[in-house]
Amino acid sequence: MSSVDPFLAKLERARTAAKGLANLTTTRKNAGLDAIAAALESAVPRIVAANAEDLERGERNGIGAGLIDRLRLDEPRILALAAAVRDVISLPDPVGEVVRGSTLANGIAISQVRVPFGVVGAIYEARPNVTVDIAALALKSGNGTVLRGGSAAERTNAVLVALIQEALDSVGLDGGAVQTVDEFGREGAGRLMRARGYIDVLIPRGSAGLISTVVQESTVPVIETGSGLVHVYVDATADEEMAVAIVKNAKTHRPSVCNAAETLLVHRDAAERLLGRLAAELMSAGVVVSGDAATLVAVDGALPADEETWATEHHALEMAIKVVDSLDEALAHIERYSTRHTESIVTQDLASAERFLAEVDSAVVMVNASTRFTDGGEFGFGAEVGISTQKLHARGPMGLPELTSTKWLVRGSGQIR
Amino acid sequence: MSSVDPFLAKLERARTAAKGLANLTTTRKNAGLDAIAAALESAVPRIVAANAEDLERGERNGIGAGLIDRLRLDEPRILALAAAVRDVISLPDPVGEVVRGSTLANGIAISQVRVPFGVVGAIYEARPNVTVDIAALALKSGNGTVLRGGSAAERTNAVLVALIQEALDSVGLDGGAVQTVDEFGREGAGRLMRARGYIDVLIPRGSAGLISTVVQESTVPVIETGSGLVHVYVDATADEEMAVAIVKNAKTHRPSVCNAAETLLVHRDAAERLLGRLAAELMSAGVVVSGDAATLVAVDGALPADEETWATEHHALEMAIKVVDSLDEALAHIERYSTRHTESIVTQDLASAERFLAEVDSAVVMVNASTRFTDGGEFGFGAEVGISTQKLHARGPMGLPELTSTKWLVRGSGQIR
Repeated sequence: MSSVDPFLAKLERARTAAKGLANLTTTRKNAGLDAIAAALESAVPRIVAANAEDLERGERNGIGAGLIDRLRLDEPRILALAAAVRDVISLPDPVGEVVRGSTLANGIAISQVRVPFGVVGAIYEARPNVTVDIAALALKSGNGTVLRGGSAAERTNAVLVALIQEALDSVGLDGGAVQTVDEFGREGAGRLMRARGYIDVLIPRGSAGLISTVVQESTVPVIETGSGLVHVYVDATADEEMAVAIVKNAKTHRPSVCNAAETLLVHRDAAERLLGRLAAELMSAGVVVSGDAATLVAVDGALPADEETWATEHHALEMAIKVVDSLDEALAHIERYSTRHTESIVTQDLASAERFLAEVDSAVVMVNASTRFTDGGEFGFGAEVGISTQKLHARGPMGLPELTSTKWLVRGSGQIR
Repeated sequence: MSSVDPFLAKLERARTAAKGLANLTTTRKNAGLDAIAAALESAVPRIVAANAEDLERGERNGIGAGLIDRLRLDEPRILALAAAVRDVISLPDPVGEVVRGSTLANGIAISQVRVPFGVVGAIYEARPNVTVDIAALALKSGNGTVLRGGSAAERTNAVLVALIQEALDSVGLDGGAVQTVDEFGREGAGRLMRARGYIDVLIPRGSAGLISTVVQESTVPVIETGSGLVHVYVDATADEEMAVAIVKNAKTHRPSVCNAAETLLVHRDAAERLLGRLAAELMSAGVVVSGDAATLVAVDGALPADEETWATEHHALEMAIKVVDSLDEALAHIERYSTRHTESIVTQDLASAERFLAEVDSAVVMVNASTRFTDGGEFGFGAEVGISTQKLHARGPMGLPELTSTKWLVRGSGQIR
């Protein structure tokens, strides 16, 4: 039954193909991934040409330099994308994994096994690399994909999706498993969010505004990713060298990403020992420091922080510093301003460490480690599906198993109740 | 910070109390459950009196006999509710369970542990027993609860919630953890569905219409439960006695519940052997049988089934029968009409059994067993949180672990990237 509505026809096409993927062997899915990687490598000029059109239109429309950079696909980036697809080949296939099981008293054997969701939807902005990433991860986990990559990258995404479809077809898989709905514009994004029965889970990737829109408007279940207002708390007993190393790394190692720290909380007793040096080291690394009244007294050149500062994700070389009287005050500040992504305490005190771990309600809670470790690769998952900041289904770094559901298999021999 | 808005003030109250529950020992939570059970047992007259008001109003408003029966709480039912609360005491506490963990190459130890969601919302209709069930299961899993139990049971629910709050307070727990928003009427239900940041997960219990409304309107993550258009497929090679026993049990053991079968699919080769007897046994058990053309020829007294019949959950002594030419046709019928709750095949053929298990996309897929086994109690979970028919977070019978999220604890000794 294929729909006459061209939008629904695409969703049905993905759904039909996904049914075929659900029970494919790992070997055949890996052959598809290998074909996708090879297609990317051999189509560099075609991708670059389509990308040039998007870049030119973007520049004409005056989109910012950051967006232009995210939009750009040159040969090294395309080869890196192909390499990332090949990395997915080596990841374990989650489908078919038996999560738990038992034999009931009446002899019925029950087992809960991982199965693909079906069709994964993704809504993102001006990041053509996401097109390939999501399609590859979805394929390995047995899912079809419907992509809405935004108008800014429309030409690039169209070529990438065509390449992926051709690559799958070339090894006897159903290329229809990967679809784009970019040509339906904003209306297409809206319809994707309400496509219950066609799309099993929707993953927004991009700005806080985009994620919030998807969460508010979607009737399809959503996995919320990415937003990170991350805190480091330097406790009274913190070791000086450790505190400096962790704070500097958490802020400056890669300031644009979601696991970079935004706010530094310092216990009053540690502030006397450490705050001057902490601020100086941050500033010498190019960080613009702002702070509360106590920080302004202790740190020359700090700007005054206000309510808005504590609530802002800079994702840049800016850090807000607050001196707190107690662990309780630090916990209360985190409770109020955190986006529940990652928080870290630097301390030598066991009781403070355990309270922080128990009471901070974030996806990842750390003791004496840089917040930059909240990452699928660092956790050993080997692939970047995203970092969930919601509590349902997945929380924290997501690997391939988070792109699956489960079903119960029940094997009896005539049992009735 | 407590809100002046009386609705939000209740949600904040639950949230504050839930923070206190999150790290309570199992012993203290069990003391709370014991106090709730004792309070129910000692307040039978008070509950019955409040319930009488609801029943009287319901009868005045002409609500149906089924609804009146669900609404009624008499002494035996109240004592059974108290006993169910005591059963929760013996269940393992999911909070703190280490789901997985490892030590990274750099020496950082990571572990993923179960934590409460925070506050669980429930929206249901005229089922005062749900008030107690959900509050008890949420308490054991460390969650606060905000309940919207519908106007028909408002007096009963108000007394039950007051009893629960008093019981918790009496053992030094925070009674504010359990709140009702019944007094805010329909507007309260609507606000509960949009209370992101206050409610972590919303569970609708009741009619398909209620569940659909919550799924469509909620911006809070929802766990969809309950709807069951369940199929039994009798394959060509099915054993006669087994087929009769399973079909009869699946349809007639408790026809009003979601795991009762609604549609019987029979392979043409088995129909010649079995259909007459299957239909006769169903009819002699009081089942009204309808069917397709082939069934009408084979079964005297069967009513004609139409498109609507295949799509209807009767939850009564009615069964639709269709003769299919092949396993493929059975799978296609299930794909089209199933609500993805439970399906069962009766067969002696291994290939048919394995294809059915692999290809049916339902929460529970069975071979040679009654669909009535899809049940938390039967699966050994010991408590009835509901049966999820969605793919995100939980699928199939839900136990206490499904009322929790996880967080990652990361213990380092100064590591940076």
